[in-house]
Amino acid sequence: MWQLKQQVYEANMALPLHGLVTFTWGNVSAIDRDRGCIVIKPSGVAYEQMAADDMVVVSLSGEVIEGRYRPSSDTATHLALYQRYSDIGGVVHTHSTHATAWAQAGRSIPALGTTHADYFFGDIPCTRPLTSAEVAGEYELNTGRVIIETIGQANPLHTPGVLVYQHGPFAWGEDAGQALHNAVVMEEVARMAWITGEINPKQKVIDDYLMNKHFHRKHGPGAYYGQPK
Amino acid sequence: MWQLKQQVYEANMALPLHGLVTFTWGNVSAIDRDRGCIVIKPSGVAYEQMAADDMVVVSLSGEVIEGRYRPSSDTATHLALYQRYSDIGGVVHTHSTHATAWAQAGRSIPALGTTHADYFFGDIPCTRPLTSAEVAGEYELNTGRVIIETIGQANPLHTPGVLVYQHGPFAWGEDAGQALHNAVVMEEVARMAWITGEINPKQKVIDDYLMNKHFHRKHGPGAYYGQPK
Amino acid sequence: MWQLKQQVYEANMALPLHGLVTFTWGNVSAIDRDRGCIVIKPSGVAYEQMAADDMVVVSLSGEVIEGRYRPSSDTATHLALYQRYSDIGGVVHTHSTHATAWAQAGRSIPALGTTHADYFFGDIPCTRPLTSAEVAGEYELNTGRVIIETIGQANPLHTPGVLVYQHGPFAWGEDAGQALHNAVVMEEVARMAWITGEINPKQKVIDDYLMNKHFHRKHGPGAYYGQPK
Amino acid sequence: MWQLKQQVYEANMALPLHGLVTFTWGNVSAIDRDRGCIVIKPSGVAYEQMAADDMVVVSLSGEVIEGRYRPSSDTATHLALYQRYSDIGGVVHTHSTHATAWAQAGRSIPALGTTHADYFFGDIPCTRPLTSAEVAGEYELNTGRVIIETIGQANPLHTPGVLVYQHGPFAWGEDAGQALHNAVVMEEVARMAWITGEINPKQKVIDDYLMNKHFHRKHGPGAYYGQPK
Repeated sequence: MWQLKQQVYEANMALPLHGLVTFTWGNVSAIDRDRGCIVIKPSGVAYEQMAADDMVVVSLSGEVIEGRYRPSSDTATHLALYQRYSDIGGVVHTHSTHATAWAQAGRSIPALGTTHADYFFGDIPCTRPLTSAEVAGEYELNTGRVIIETIGQANPLHTPGVLVYQHGPFAWGEDAGQALHNAVVMEEVARMAWITGEINPKQKVIDDYLMNKHFHRKHGPGAYYGQPK
Repeated sequence: MWQLKQQVYEANMALPLHGLVTFTWGNVSAIDRDRGCIVIKPSGVAYEQMAADDMVVVSLSGEVIEGRYRPSSDTATHLALYQRYSDIGGVVHTHSTHATAWAQAGRSIPALGTTHADYFFGDIPCTRPLTSAEVAGEYELNTGRVIIETIGQANPLHTPGVLVYQHGPFAWGEDAGQALHNAVVMEEVARMAWITGEINPKQKVIDDYLMNKHFHRKHGPGAYYGQPK
Repeated sequence: MWQLKQQVYEANMALPLHGLVTFTWGNVSAIDRDRGCIVIKPSGVAYEQMAADDMVVVSLSGEVIEGRYRPSSDTATHLALYQRYSDIGGVVHTHSTHATAWAQAGRSIPALGTTHADYFFGDIPCTRPLTSAEVAGEYELNTGRVIIETIGQANPLHTPGVLVYQHGPFAWGEDAGQALHNAVVMEEVARMAWITGEINPKQKVIDDYLMNKHFHRKHGPGAYYGQPK
Repeated sequence: MWQLKQQVYEANMALPLHGLVTFTWGNVSAIDRDRGCIVIKPSGVAYEQMAADDMVVVSLSGEVIEGRYRPSSDTATHLALYQRYSDIGGVVHTHSTHATAWAQAGRSIPALGTTHADYFFGDIPCTRPLTSAEVAGEYELNTGRVIIETIGQANPLHTPGVLVYQHGPFAWGEDAGQALHNAVVMEEVARMAWITGEINPKQKVIDDYLMNKHFHRKHGPGAYYGQPK
C-alpha cells in the first residue's frame, strides 16, 4: 500500500507544479484492484503541508480503511468511474482554468489538431446538466453517473477525460501518473482550442484520417512514438 | 498587536506570490475589534523592503496609533467596511488583472460555475460609478460607502468581494488570510468568466440548486468539505 | 559616470525580470545633462552576458564617447526625446507583448480605469505611420520625431509613453528607474485594456473627474499617495 | 560529433525553459553536412532525464548510425528539409501554444509589425492540408514535402518557419541555436498577432518599406543591428 500512496501523493503534488490547481482545488486517486480499495487525497488539505502518509485508503463501497483524514469530497465520483471501467487505474479532478472555462461554457472541446488527437480520439465531451434531484441526492455519485452516461460504451482510454457541465474536468488513465498526464494535456488543448476559435471561428475539426494516424502513432499495437517498452 | 501585524504582513507578502499585484498596487488590513484598531500596509512601500514591524496601526476613527509610516491611502475604505460589517476581520484591495478588467468593463462577474459558487453566493457585483461630488469629497470613504450600498443587507461573507466601478476589486473575510484567499479566488473566477464568455457568449449563469449545493458544501452548518475543525 | 552606468544597467536587467523582453528586444538609457551625454545599452548583447561596464556612453550628437560596444540601434530615437523634453531623464523601449499588440493594431490605449490614470493622464497615444521617405531616411531619428509630433506641447511626464505605429512602446520618466516603472505599467494597462474591451466592447473611458483625482493623488504638489520624500 | 550532440542537446533543453513544450512535445536537430548525418532528439524521452549523449546520430537516408535510442518520430520531416535547403543547419519542431493555435486555425500568421519583420520576411505561411493518401503513406516524409511545397523557391532563411496545417510549427536556422531562436520568435509573434486581431480585426499588414527596413537592419550585407562579427 505504501507504494500506491507514494504514487498518488506524487501525482497530487504535480498538480500545482503543472499550474492545474489553485489552493486545494484538485485531487488524484489510484486503485488497487487486487485489494479492492483506492488511495485518494484527503479533503481540503494544502499541498505544501501534505505527506504521502496522509493519503486516505477507501474501500470500493466508500469506507475509510486507513488514514487519519477525511477523503476528498469527490471520492464517490472516483469510485463510480473505477467500478464502471476496469481499464482505469487513476483518476484526476481539477478546476484548471481553460478546461473549466469550456465546462462553464457547456461546450465539448473540439478535436482541432494533432496535439489533441495524440491523446483524445475525438472531441472531449461535456456532460448534460445534472437535474435538481440529482444534485439534491447523492451529488458526487451522480456526478460519476453522468460522466459514465457521457462516455457510455466507448473505450475510456480513448477518451481519457470529460468536462462536467458548469463544474470542471475529470481525467483518467492506466495509473495515477497517466491520469495526471491526461489532465495536463486536457488543459493545454482546452487553451489551444479557445485561441483557435478566436482566430478562426469557422474552423472545422481535424479530418478522421489525420486523427486516426496521430492517435495510433502513440497508442495501441501499431504505435511507433517513443521507445520500445 | 505583534501577532496581528505578523498576519497582516504575511497576507500582504502573499499578494505578489499569488500574482495579484504589480509594484505596490495592493494592500491588506485586519481588525482587532477588542482594542478598536486595525493594522494595515504602509502606503507605497515596496514589498521586498517591507517588514512586519512596518505595518501601521490605525484607530477606527482613522488616526495613526503606531508606526513610522503613513498608512495605505485606501485606509478610509477599509475602515468603512469594518464599521458596517461586524463579521469582517480582514480586507484586501488589489488591481489584479482580470478582476480589474471586469471593474473597468463595469460588469458584475456572473456566477458561471461551481468554482465561483464554492466561495461567492451569486454574482460578484460591480458598484455604480461614484459621482463627481463623491470623488471630489472624501473619496476613499465614499469608495467604502458605495461598496456598502452595493452589498446592502446581504451577508458579506456570502459575497466576500465586489468590484469598484472603473477601479478594481475589494475582497474580505473572517481574517486577513481568508480575505487574501477570497481575493485569489476572485481573480481566478474573473479570468475563467472572461474565457467562458469568449467560448460561449450566450451561456447562462449556474442553476440555483447547483450554486446552493456547492456554496453550502463548503460553508455553514451542513458543510462537509475539508477536515472537521 | 560609473553611477549612471550602474543605474542604466540595473534598469536594463529588470526588463527580463518584469517579463517585458524576449532575447535582446529592449533597451534603457539615461541622460547626464551636465556632461551632455547619455548612457545606453549596447546593441544586440544578451542580458545574461552583460555587465554594468558594457553600457555605452554617447554624446548628444550621437558619437560614442566611451565603451567597447556599438550602442543600441535605437540610440537616435532616445537622443531626440532627451533633446526635445528637458524633464525626461530616462527612456525605455521594449516589444512587450500587449503594448506591442496595441501598436500593431494602430490603436491608442484608452484610459479605462484608475490603474491607467494613476500614471497616464489620458489615453496612451499611437503615432501615425512613418512615410516611406521617413523610413528610407534617418529612420531611428524619424521615429523620435514622430513620437515628439504625437506628444506635442503636452507634459511628457503626464503622458510618459507612446506606441509607435506597427512597432511598439517607448516609455520615459525622470530617471532610468522611473522610465522602467512606466514601461511596466504600460504593459499591464495594455493587457487590462484588451481584456476590458473583450468583456464590454462598448465601455467608455474613465470620467475626467476620476482620472484627475487618481493622477493627482500620485503626482504633483497635492499628491498624498506613498511616503513624504 | 560530440560538439554537435552538445549543441543539439542544449537547444532541446532550452525548449522547456522558453515555455515552448509540454512534456516531450518538441524536438531539435542539427546537421553535419561534411559527414552526411544529423543529430536529433530521441523519441519520447523526458527532458529532465536526457543527457547530451542520448542524442541520436542518423544518416541522411534515415538510418541510425549512433545512439541507443530511437530517433524522434519526426526525423523524416527534418531530413527532407535538410536535403532540399542547403542553407539550413538546424530544425526545431514544437507544439507551442499560440503558433499551434494558428496552425489549427489554418491561417498564416500575418506580418503585423516590426517584431515579426525583424525575423520573418512576410507572413509565416500555413501549409495546405495533407491528403488522406499522404497521411496513410510516408506521413512524416510527406509533412516535410508539404513544407517544401509551401516555401518553394523562397530563401528559407528569410522565412525561417512555417505552420503545418492542424498540426503545429516547424522552424529552422543556420544552426540549432538559430533554429531555436526562430521558434521562440514564432511563438511570440503568433501570440501578438492573435491579440492584435482581437483589438483591431481590420488591421492591415505592415507596409513593404517598413518590413524591408527592419528585416535588412538585422540580416544581410547592410545589417547594422548588434555587434560586428
